[in-house]
Amino acid sequence: MRTQVAIIGAGPAGLLLGHLLRAEGIDVIIVERASSDYVLGRIRAGVLERTTTDLMDRLGLGARMHAEGLPHDGFHLADGERLIRIDIAALTGRQVMVYGQTEVTRDLMAAAPERGLQIIYDAANVALHDVESDRPSLTFEKDGAVRRIEADFLCGCDGFHGPSRQAVPPSVASAYEKVYPFGWLGILADVPPCTHELIYANHARGFALASMRSETRSRYYVQVALDEKIEDWPDDRLWDELAVRLGPEAAANLTRGPSLEKSIAPLRSFVFEPMRHGRLLLAGDSAHIVPPTGAKGLNLAASDVHYLSEALIGHYLRNDRDGIAGYSRKALARVWKSERFSWQLTRLMHRFPDGDAFDRRMQVAELDYIASSTAAQTSIAENYVGLPL
Amino acid sequence: MRTQVAIIGAGPAGLLLGHLLRAEGIDVIIVERASSDYVLGRIRAGVLERTTTDLMDRLGLGARMHAEGLPHDGFHLADGERLIRIDIAALTGRQVMVYGQTEVTRDLMAAAPERGLQIIYDAANVALHDVESDRPSLTFEKDGAVRRIEADFLCGCDGFHGPSRQAVPPSVASAYEKVYPFGWLGILADVPPCTHELIYANHARGFALASMRSETRSRYYVQVALDEKIEDWPDDRLWDELAVRLGPEAAANLTRGPSLEKSIAPLRSFVFEPMRHGRLLLAGDSAHIVPPTGAKGLNLAASDVHYLSEALIGHYLRNDRDGIAGYSRKALARVWKSERFSWQLTRLMHRFPDGDAFDRRMQVAELDYIASSTAAQTSIAENYVGLPL
Repeated sequence: MRTQVAIIGAGPAGLLLGHLLRAEGIDVIIVERASSDYVLGRIRAGVLERTTTDLMDRLGLGARMHAEGLPHDGFHLADGERLIRIDIAALTGRQVMVYGQTEVTRDLMAAAPERGLQIIYDAANVALHDVESDRPSLTFEKDGAVRRIEADFLCGCDGFHGPSRQAVPPSVASAYEKVYPFGWLGILADVPPCTHELIYANHARGFALASMRSETRSRYYVQVALDEKIEDWPDDRLWDELAVRLGPEAAANLTRGPSLEKSIAPLRSFVFEPMRHGRLLLAGDSAHIVPPTGAKGLNLAASDVHYLSEALIGHYLRNDRDGIAGYSRKALARVWKSERFSWQLTRLMHRFPDGDAFDRRMQVAELDYIASSTAAQTSIAENYVGLPL
Repeated sequence: MRTQVAIIGAGPAGLLLGHLLRAEGIDVIIVERASSDYVLGRIRAGVLERTTTDLMDRLGLGARMHAEGLPHDGFHLADGERLIRIDIAALTGRQVMVYGQTEVTRDLMAAAPERGLQIIYDAANVALHDVESDRPSLTFEKDGAVRRIEADFLCGCDGFHGPSRQAVPPSVASAYEKVYPFGWLGILADVPPCTHELIYANHARGFALASMRSETRSRYYVQVALDEKIEDWPDDRLWDELAVRLGPEAAANLTRGPSLEKSIAPLRSFVFEPMRHGRLLLAGDSAHIVPPTGAKGLNLAASDVHYLSEALIGHYLRNDRDGIAGYSRKALARVWKSERFSWQLTRLMHRFPDGDAFDRRMQVAELDYIASSTAAQTSIAENYVGLPL
């Protein structure tokens, strides 16, 4: 097989990129290790920046998002006693959209056939070849046979564990990483959210987050130690813990229900540089991970895809070579700023096992300062809605 | 001897407090361990917030400060390559005043006799007594005799190493501390400053600060390891190091000269709670220390003195007991915010020996973000000029 752009990974990054290129008439094939059901079964983020919703709108695929998504004007930081509202709409003129990553993926997936976006699911052992040459290719196994796709460019949208990043020789790359000494235990349940807007709580017992996917589906998290086991967290214990950590106001509105999904995820900051090597271009989690505090992961993938689609469209439609050459620098400038915000919000809102009493008081002082300062609230808000592209 | 308010310490905090109380006709005696020459010989901070200059003006003692001080509209953060200007005047409508702590002390000291502010210098072995009673007192040795002052209130303005804080029983107090893994090597020299406004530089070799006391007197600092010795830093080495760390633009204007003073100071964050115990009231360094990054130390002492003078004036002139009772809470709210700012600016601008590559990139990302964001610059500026009282 031959195509212009071969994309590894049919998550939201790969699908968005594929659609943006197809909309300009560029040939694309997406290769995905898993099945479409598996991809749709992954529960991930649910707060979209305007930069992300703009891409959906540009594709003409935002109708269900606007119909079913929940536009939010603000969110709350809590310190166990009070709620500090960050009025993002008033401070930045922008909203965010609560709409699950799963739903974004579903919309993009559903539109693929009609737009000629070919997706090969269940492609095992994807391998990248000759990325430093003008004729890169990838191979994979499907239905018992090895297949090859030759392309002008390979785009690695295959997440943190995918093969794309591994195809960049360590000698030309740098990786930066911070692993946090705790994880998030998440629960998804078909109950109405306890609050209209998100609450990020820094409680003496640890962080908690009240979030939602819709008006009837709630998503909650609590900070847990890395050695905690999911078996030790029956639903009742988790609901009890949430009621304590989110504070009395939220607890009074907390509707409990059976978990649809419950899992523990570690928290990591990770950046891989550069995001281009020869004709291999990385986007999203394949190149960087943020801790989920602040919901930047999917949005950062979307801004990568914005820059990358511009570069590839320039290459094919305007014979512009600078876009490809400059992609990594351009994408990384925004990546590092989002990494900074996610890292800072993570440090502000969690209990660190190695933190001392002074560190704790600095968290309290920062929350006090934020509560009192329009400038501080604006800084948080502009990051939360997404810094300019 | 008997007085209404006995103040321990004749540094700027004690002198300011004494003058503010005297201006309302309250009887005050200040007791100082050292000589007046020794007090005047201490080289300390030199950037005054408006809240501090306002107190000097209110006392009618601001004339020389306004004549000789340098009002500044901004300062710079540097990362080795570029200068990021924080335009505090445009962002906050306020300036800061470059005027040495030594000069503030000199002005306050000179006005003491004419205003009936009694200062007893060379008072050895100051001790506080009966602070939990209605009849507290202090004793000291002077000219070979032990003397006693009985007072309604004792005010501890005697710095980090003074006896006042020790008079609060550990059982009712909490201390919060962070010691930083580096110090500041400072030089004072009678040469014109290399720059009109201050430069805080985060260079690969460590932090540096270009500051000044006047148009002919410069004050510079470099971050050094805690085990460095002053003998290893002859003037030439220090000027060479400054030229590198401050960056090419500042280096081109760097005028070298012999050091008037050269010393290494450790960096510490420290807060002692509460700031009142019975009839003992703490203000300034006796209750809290900030690292010098951002120049909050003297200004925080001045805001303590503002709150404390209001409380004591209310007590004597309006029979208001609530001011004294609420002093600690009121002062500490501002203390913790200044502690936060000083800690954050210290973390942003220094090289931490235990920092990894990710931490370094977070510093760079934060500087990049600050350079691009009016909200971030406003947040820094409003802290730099001093948060509202």
